[in-house]
Amino acid sequence: MNAELTQNDFLNGLVTLWQPKDGYRAGVDPVLLAATIPAKAGARVLELGSGAGAAFLCLAKRVPNLVVHAVELQPDYAALAHRNAKENGVDATIWEADLAALPIELRQMQFDHVFANPPYFDRAASTAAQDAGRDVAMGEDTPLDTWVEVAAKRLAAKGTATFVHRAERLLDLLSAMQGVLGSVQVMPLQPRVGRDANLVLVRGVKGGRAAFRLHAPVRMHEGDVHTRDGESYTDQIRAVLRDGAALSFP
Amino acid sequence: MNAELTQNDFLNGLVTLWQPKDGYRAGVDPVLLAATIPAKAGARVLELGSGAGAAFLCLAKRVPNLVVHAVELQPDYAALAHRNAKENGVDATIWEADLAALPIELRQMQFDHVFANPPYFDRAASTAAQDAGRDVAMGEDTPLDTWVEVAAKRLAAKGTATFVHRAERLLDLLSAMQGVLGSVQVMPLQPRVGRDANLVLVRGVKGGRAAFRLHAPVRMHEGDVHTRDGESYTDQIRAVLRDGAALSFP
Repeated sequence: MNAELTQNDFLNGLVTLWQPKDGYRAGVDPVLLAATIPAKAGARVLELGSGAGAAFLCLAKRVPNLVVHAVELQPDYAALAHRNAKENGVDATIWEADLAALPIELRQMQFDHVFANPPYFDRAASTAAQDAGRDVAMGEDTPLDTWVEVAAKRLAAKGTATFVHRAERLLDLLSAMQGVLGSVQVMPLQPRVGRDANLVLVRGVKGGRAAFRLHAPVRMHEGDVHTRDGESYTDQIRAVLRDGAALSFP
Repeated sequence: MNAELTQNDFLNGLVTLWQPKDGYRAGVDPVLLAATIPAKAGARVLELGSGAGAAFLCLAKRVPNLVVHAVELQPDYAALAHRNAKENGVDATIWEADLAALPIELRQMQFDHVFANPPYFDRAASTAAQDAGRDVAMGEDTPLDTWVEVAAKRLAAKGTATFVHRAERLLDLLSAMQGVLGSVQVMPLQPRVGRDANLVLVRGVKGGRAAFRLHAPVRMHEGDVHTRDGESYTDQIRAVLRDGAALSFP
């Protein structure tokens, strides 16, 4: 990778991540995603579109002895994910592959939990980012339907698929899940009390038959307005981001 | 109608409704629905599946000089809607018709706002109610997709379609709206603070292009638990149910 790299801490330094300085950079979203995965020790987990690995690394640090696989389309990010897993002492298999054409070996595997933080911007509705890597990571070459279908296909019966996405893509995400995954639940994340959700965590279960649930929003920040630059996370979110706590669906 | 009727007050008596004692009876849901319709004086509005008329009557009492039309499949309820409109001094045209086969005259009309409180229970997943009228009103003979399609077809450009439904049908409702209506917004209603939404108010705009929005939930009741049988509505909801206040989408 020719791009300049920086090293960033997650979970109060429990995970250290090499990321390109100017490309797509993991924020809090993959950490929140990892916190919601209901994996038990020893479970088989698969991340789709892992980037440099923030989500699967945070999950592997919270739950012991996972069998971790990750798919990443971009060679540079796949290499970083491999390096980051190694340097963080996590045993993970990274597949450099297109979601729409997974290697046959991977297509023969099943997982207890699949999760993804798909690109946030619909390419048709946005201008391309300056950085090519960031553009692929942020833009949407692979339709959301494909992310959901591939996740569902790789799940064992009763396995969970979990996605974090911008709230404004919830309609598209739920439409993609309709008829593909059951027992769908939405956990909205709102920046402050009374505000619209800006992010959503959405879970479906393979073969699930429970009714759809829309949970009360999880609040990210204390206070009604952004009063200062310092950290204002709620206790619940701080525990997730700093202490590696789980963020359980109710 | 042979069934025994009762007369019930809505909006602190501003609307008085004849309803069958044992059939489908309007609760707070149609009142909430009516409160969200952004109609201006003189607008053309259409209710689909009006039952005895609670929603369109509440709306007509809040906004003056509306051109009000309503469609109701069941003859007994259509007759009640007609009678209730007359006794409440509201000029409304009631069409006794199946949504899937609207009369040609109605199909030639366009409306600024269409709204509906579709049957709450998926017939395939529920047992039939004892009362035949209640069964049709509560069960789902007409697929949710049809409600959404018919609403969209009857709308003028930039007109709004608004639905109230159980939260557990949100996935189905949003899937039905995908590609049919734009600028979709969801206003969840939660019984108490921190609880899952039990109802959702969902609006789409014909030809709308704004991003999907998931609003913060509107709380129905004060307190963390149900402490007494008396009324515990929040001030906002009490104003809607008692004083006929609007419940605006943000």
